[in-house]
Amino acid sequence: MIKSSLGLDFGTESVRAIIISLDGHQLALAEEQYPHGQILDHLPGSTEPLPPKSAHQHPSDWLDSAAKATRSALSESNAQIIGIGVDFTSCTMLPVLRDGTPLCLQEKFTPNPQAWPKLWKHHGAIAQAARMTAIARERKEPFLSRYGGLIGEEWLFPKILETLETAPDVAAATEIWLEAGDWFVWQLVGTLVRSTCQAGYKGLWSAEDGFPSHDYLAALHPDLPNLVAQKLPGQFLAPGTPAGTLTPEMATRFGLSENTPVSAAIIDAHAGVPGSGAAEPDTLVMVMGTSSCHMLNSTANRDVPGIAGIVKDGILPGFYGYETGQAAVGDAFDWLRRLTGQENFSSLSKEAAALPPGADGVRCLDWFNGCRTPHMNAALTGAFTGLTLHHGPAHLHRALMEASACGVRWIVELLREKGLPVTRFIATGGLPHHDPALVQIYADVLGETIQVPSTTQGPALGAAILGALAAGAFPTTHEAIASMTSQATLTTYSPQNSAAYHSLYQDYRRLADHHS
Amino acid sequence: MIKSSLGLDFGTESVRAIIISLDGHQLALAEEQYPHGQILDHLPGSTEPLPPKSAHQHPSDWLDSAAKATRSALSESNAQIIGIGVDFTSCTMLPVLRDGTPLCLQEKFTPNPQAWPKLWKHHGAIAQAARMTAIARERKEPFLSRYGGLIGEEWLFPKILETLETAPDVAAATEIWLEAGDWFVWQLVGTLVRSTCQAGYKGLWSAEDGFPSHDYLAALHPDLPNLVAQKLPGQFLAPGTPAGTLTPEMATRFGLSENTPVSAAIIDAHAGVPGSGAAEPDTLVMVMGTSSCHMLNSTANRDVPGIAGIVKDGILPGFYGYETGQAAVGDAFDWLRRLTGQENFSSLSKEAAALPPGADGVRCLDWFNGCRTPHMNAALTGAFTGLTLHHGPAHLHRALMEASACGVRWIVELLREKGLPVTRFIATGGLPHHDPALVQIYADVLGETIQVPSTTQGPALGAAILGALAAGAFPTTHEAIASMTSQATLTTYSPQNSAAYHSLYQDYRRLADHHS
Repeated sequence: MIKSSLGLDFGTESVRAIIISLDGHQLALAEEQYPHGQILDHLPGSTEPLPPKSAHQHPSDWLDSAAKATRSALSESNAQIIGIGVDFTSCTMLPVLRDGTPLCLQEKFTPNPQAWPKLWKHHGAIAQAARMTAIARERKEPFLSRYGGLIGEEWLFPKILETLETAPDVAAATEIWLEAGDWFVWQLVGTLVRSTCQAGYKGLWSAEDGFPSHDYLAALHPDLPNLVAQKLPGQFLAPGTPAGTLTPEMATRFGLSENTPVSAAIIDAHAGVPGSGAAEPDTLVMVMGTSSCHMLNSTANRDVPGIAGIVKDGILPGFYGYETGQAAVGDAFDWLRRLTGQENFSSLSKEAAALPPGADGVRCLDWFNGCRTPHMNAALTGAFTGLTLHHGPAHLHRALMEASACGVRWIVELLREKGLPVTRFIATGGLPHHDPALVQIYADVLGETIQVPSTTQGPALGAAILGALAAGAFPTTHEAIASMTSQATLTTYSPQNSAAYHSLYQDYRRLADHHS
Repeated sequence: MIKSSLGLDFGTESVRAIIISLDGHQLALAEEQYPHGQILDHLPGSTEPLPPKSAHQHPSDWLDSAAKATRSALSESNAQIIGIGVDFTSCTMLPVLRDGTPLCLQEKFTPNPQAWPKLWKHHGAIAQAARMTAIARERKEPFLSRYGGLIGEEWLFPKILETLETAPDVAAATEIWLEAGDWFVWQLVGTLVRSTCQAGYKGLWSAEDGFPSHDYLAALHPDLPNLVAQKLPGQFLAPGTPAGTLTPEMATRFGLSENTPVSAAIIDAHAGVPGSGAAEPDTLVMVMGTSSCHMLNSTANRDVPGIAGIVKDGILPGFYGYETGQAAVGDAFDWLRRLTGQENFSSLSKEAAALPPGADGVRCLDWFNGCRTPHMNAALTGAFTGLTLHHGPAHLHRALMEASACGVRWIVELLREKGLPVTRFIATGGLPHHDPALVQIYADVLGETIQVPSTTQGPALGAAILGALAAGAFPTTHEAIASMTSQATLTTYSPQNSAAYHSLYQDYRRLADHHS
């Protein structure tokens, strides 16, 4: 039996269970789709389509899929699981009863979409987020500078406000609001704790100031101050610290030992930082998946416009963790694939890679799910320009790759302009291994070398590292990361293409200016 | 045997032979694709792809397909053909020897694309057209005002200049340059005559001034004055006047009687004016096909920016004929259908028609083949904006329909601003019958009633009317049109949708301003 840690990595479409030995060998990996799909098409017992901009998941899927994936991973390895780490999409949140029962599983509330978990990309709270930002600015709320001056419509409070305003009965019946990652850990250990990562980046919380002030909350909605005081219970714990140990019931369900330590949750993208081997500051970890989060640890504390969050000790202890993001990356490629009637990416990628920089004149603005950094505005939209009858799907695909890369370059320029050094680049998440051509274009557009860790499971590996830390297997985070991660491959940039991208990047910025 | 006229309608993809009795009954219709396709993929004996922006056809296809279609039409009717009319895409042009042999059929020149007929949408002469315009402006050439101040890169002289500059051996070997419509009529009757329609709209010619001046031509290329003097022979004749009668050889090949009168050619779109029953002024005839030509006869002589041409007696005798156009209509819909991987239009049209005005936020600029009116610039490109992950092919299809309608509205506003009344709207060509939803959106965006002639063969019918005129079957054009055309159906506009389109039209104009 090899001493190992289990990482459970909850993505948008599926959960992955990974087993990593303490010396960094991947012993097993199993993936399970959510039985009800990435996004519910309709609520159980109904055939009515859900409102546009909504995105709901089924909470039973998380436990069912994770138990199945864990059992499957265990069956293919000779591992002794000494700790468990959990990363989860965020802010994916839900209303529950005091005993943890999701409100949506109460017969009375099942027909109401607002009782269901809202996935990170649920965009029903655009108006609420705008109002929260406007009132916070007016009141000069100090927390605002930690979030680039803008509150995202994907975050916890806008999503709670949406329910307060549109489904007061659901809000009244809710006893606890929480992040899905925290809910899942609660189910495993029987105790509710909250991750400082999720709370810091998506819940307007900080260790120093807690949640926003009573007066600000009251200015948003009369019920909100009481809601925060009463319906957001739980101790705040940093990822890597133990939330508790596995309950007998869950040990049986998952096929693990009772009393296995479980780490407090972490946001999926943020787990990619330890998972990709980034233990030191000034490294941009680009977690590229459905959407992308680009994270940077720095010793400096700076305000950056349109940043998704600055949380002290939010990613790794001892640093200011900066989170920036692109709202649609893998999602946008998949949407374009479907829009152009392609069954898969094979011919599309091959043809696109063969095109010259500039996609024969096609330009793209990749804001198909709004813009995170720098605008933090989900209402912004995307575009293709420069189109002629000579262009086909591959031209659009290449233009999207280039636009995505230009979006990262913009973020890097912003960080550097504000005095935050960015000296090393790591690409992780699902996309870099599926699409090396995309990493090449990122390298060319940035004019930088990009490291791609050999694991295709950066966030899952990061979760496993946090599980090992929760179990006390390593004295420091740095040692855990050094022991459990391995070498990366390098993608160097083409000086010729990089030069060509200087003017294409200016085209991108002009297009962005015109559409913002 | 019913006294009838034969119309031969050469479109981009195929030729149609129509037989119309002198009292307006369609007795037969046969269509033949060009054996070598709409555009040559490569030259005979070569597998090399042709240069981008090029578009070449095979001259043998025109005779072969027309003869086959005519024999097929004759076989299904009991008609006595008393006259023949020919309409053709324009400017589709070719270099030939003195005996009419196309240069591309000479073994020596077959491998050179410049020896092949250039289809109207061949866009290899963008630079030449720009230079022609610049020098004409500098010299204040008087002909320029007849063409909205711009020379189109699809016209005769830019295409000739392209050959002079890029293939001097082809240019030197060429004995006659001419329009494909004129070449075809020459083959039928054995005598070279030139249509005043083609020459006026695409060849910078007018009855008063002839071709441009020696000094202007010399400023463009030292060989051009001699070329115009020696290699553009032939009497100029208006459509509806006899170019000659069928040679014995062609009579046999087509299955017709020797000595049947053949009208001078007309541009395909322009044939749609008589074919759609428009015998009076101030009627906008929208000939909607692969591209669209919108024609207006008026008693007034006005300069209009970006007009494709003003030719006195160019469409119907007694009026100034104004030609305006949109460079990609059916072509753009077909491109979008292919781009989105749809096999046909059925589900696309149905879903698009069910969407509200504004296509759920998607906006389109329909310049996928450049812009004719008002910019006369083939280098301009199209765009889709307002895109999100929620949009599918039907949203883009609807946005394109609306953009196409906005393009027409812009043209109508331009004409009216310049003092040209537009009081009646006729939609003809291939598209209106295939896509009534498109006509409805045109009516809604224009806020006007649109008449759709019952025939689906407006240009072919127009050609047949000109054939009857060439045969002397009617004393006046007006009487020929009245006798040979029939009733139209009306598409009225929805006041509610029309109101919604006011602001959408402003969006279109802003998008156009940004991309021009």
